[in-house]
Amino acid sequence: MTFANVGSLGVQPGRRDDVVAILTRRGTDLADAGCLLYEVGTNDDDPDTVFVIELWESADAHRASLQLPSVTAAIAEAMPMLSGAMGGFRFDVAGSPLRD
Amino acid sequence: MTFANVGSLGVQPGRRDDVVAILTRRGTDLADAGCLLYEVGTNDDDPDTVFVIELWESADAHRASLQLPSVTAAIAEAMPMLSGAMGGFRFDVAGSPLRD
Repeated sequence: MTFANVGSLGVQPGRRDDVVAILTRRGTDLADAGCLLYEVGTNDDDPDTVFVIELWESADAHRASLQLPSVTAAIAEAMPMLSGAMGGFRFDVAGSPLRD
Repeated sequence: MTFANVGSLGVQPGRRDDVVAILTRRGTDLADAGCLLYEVGTNDDDPDTVFVIELWESADAHRASLQLPSVTAAIAEAMPMLSGAMGGFRFDVAGSPLRD
């Protein structure tokens, strides 16, 4: 069942673009691990936050991805730039009006 | 610029699946209006909430879609089933590690 993980990450002032750069670094590990969609972005009304939408083949695929060396390295790299504020939610996809 | 709208909708107890059914009703209006992705789902840990992830060609496309007759009709149909609790966020997509 497709699994969705949506998050907001608070960042230290001025580090937003650095965190976006880490999270959007091109690679094949995520797709190989079952990541279907991974969109990173920002909102100028909330300049110290980075937003992420992820879709995965399953919740297990998402969970397993957190152990990938490239992912743990990216987390370690970004961690000093984060404020600790976090939000978001996770859900199982039931469907879409765009497809049968 | 691709625009993301992510939301959580609180529902009246027992009406979750009814709201999912309304939001996933197959149609072409959203795609015609510039909707790129529209995923609806649930989380059994939070049984009175419906979650939605949307990607749009632009924030303007999203805004305009709220005036579509099919959308206003769906909102009117779902409204009595909602609790009024709402959450979520909006952002401009900066990129994805899955593509160049």
